Amino acid sequence: MTCLINGNVATTLAATDRATQYGDAVFETVAVVEGEPLHWERHWQRLVRGLDVLRLPVPDEALLRAEAREVLASTASGVLKILITAGSGGRGYRRPARPDCQRILSLHPLPSHPPQRWFDGVTVRVCRMQLAQQPVLAGLKHGNRLEQVLARAEWDAPEIAEGLMCDTDGALVEGTMSNIFAIRDGGLETPDLSRCGVAGVMREVIMELATEQQIVVHERRAGLDHWLQADALFLCNSVIGVWPVADVGGRPYPLDSLTRRLRDMVVERGLAPSPAHFRSTPP
Amino acid sequence: MTCLINGNVATTLAATDRATQYGDAVFETVAVVEGEPLHWERHWQRLVRGLDVLRLPVPDEALLRAEAREVLASTASGVLKILITAGSGGRGYRRPARPDCQRILSLHPLPSHPPQRWFDGVTVRVCRMQLAQQPVLAGLKHGNRLEQVLARAEWDAPEIAEGLMCDTDGALVEGTMSNIFAIRDGGLETPDLSRCGVAGVMREVIMELATEQQIVVHERRAGLDHWLQADALFLCNSVIGVWPVADVGGRPYPLDSLTRRLRDMVVERGLAPSPAHFRSTPP
Repeated sequence: MTCLINGNVATTLAATDRATQYGDAVFETVAVVEGEPLHWERHWQRLVRGLDVLRLPVPDEALLRAEAREVLASTASGVLKILITAGSGGRGYRRPARPDCQRILSLHPLPSHPPQRWFDGVTVRVCRMQLAQQPVLAGLKHGNRLEQVLARAEWDAPEIAEGLMCDTDGALVEGTMSNIFAIRDGGLETPDLSRCGVAGVMREVIMELATEQQIVVHERRAGLDHWLQADALFLCNSVIGVWPVADVGGRPYPLDSLTRRLRDMVVERGLAPSPAHFRSTPP
Repeated sequence: MTCLINGNVATTLAATDRATQYGDAVFETVAVVEGEPLHWERHWQRLVRGLDVLRLPVPDEALLRAEAREVLASTASGVLKILITAGSGGRGYRRPARPDCQRILSLHPLPSHPPQRWFDGVTVRVCRMQLAQQPVLAGLKHGNRLEQVLARAEWDAPEIAEGLMCDTDGALVEGTMSNIFAIRDGGLETPDLSRCGVAGVMREVIMELATEQQIVVHERRAGLDHWLQADALFLCNSVIGVWPVADVGGRPYPLDSLTRRLRDMVVERGLAPSPAHFRSTPP
């Protein structure tokens, strides 16, 4: 793994960093194809929004871009993780007047996924762990992710690709690492994220693609049953692009034409790595 | 600052540690008096509860105790922070099958507080930041503390000692770094912590002292106004012991006899550092 901290090759961080102590950080997970980070501008904008909400200083974009270029040198495809921490200092929860934020850029291989996940769809479960409702932090990719960690710890079976998470009122919000869309009467629906959840970059891309194709997209808050009664479901994130959902807890879903169209558009337009980029895991 | 990581003197941690990446950690803040960590057993029990909920392995208590002794060698008073991280490894939110937890023990000086905070009481504000309701994590001192960090960032004025936090329904829960008790008709009330908040060690001590003194203690969930209408209020944590509240957002409170009794019992019985241990800050 290549890792740059504040522009220097490094693998360790002060144990006093507030990311380590309190999860006082924001991050982005950026897909890399042919050496280029995809959707840089969208990731950058979400990072800035997160830093603003967390009241942390925004790094220089050109500097971050140059550091990303350095990390990605001689790389074809992978995942670039950008973590901006609040740095060390301050007593207890109180930050120092001028936080010494740390920029951590690390490059990781694309995860191992068999191509069937794109072509046949994925098997999904519903997690017991629910998402607390915190409007101030909703939508951000911040460093407090224990809910996702605990949800992901609920299953081991490799045939289950993702777990769905509801909020504490039972409204469906997202997957542990993906956003979800439902197809109903030819239109798209996706959970409202004003109370919790991560507003994913690929979610935004899909919403724009749909609008371009004159497909209506509704953001709404509704209980799990509403979503499970949809005609079809798919998951998305920046790394995987679009995965059709084949099964949720034993309930089968068809591979519908709109999902296939969006999945293929994402790959054809180079908006996500193609399935061929991912190493397949043995079943 | 003295710091031991897994028993070795160290100041840095792998940047890949899941505490840094996701706040995947639990911690304890232990007061040290005459070289001894106070309430070791209570802190240890909460740490074990937190590790159980987070599904992380529990370290050997004798080992942790020995490492604490080493960190505290030749120290009179201070604050011992014990942070147990989930360690590095795993792809995304998924932990490795056997987490390589890291034990980070660090020693800090007691914070600077003027003695008036104990004798005359403290000025307190009500924070705008609210606490999300997550029953699974409620009561634990886990590593996802952005809500407290953002609440503490709401004020700079040194004369304000603490900020009170309500949950997203407006029920009062705690201070950013302390628990709160109200005195009403000679009895004690303290917020219920089954939905959010940290179940503090000193809160537990106070509840036992009160019961020993035949003072009734009610845990209840109620809106901010209910608490502000109490006869008197006090804050507590392991480090400060008991601080009477003199003022909440301009509303004055008397220094009542029960608060003074509990504050003095805590010091006389050696259940917290005495005010004289704290260095005073210039006004």
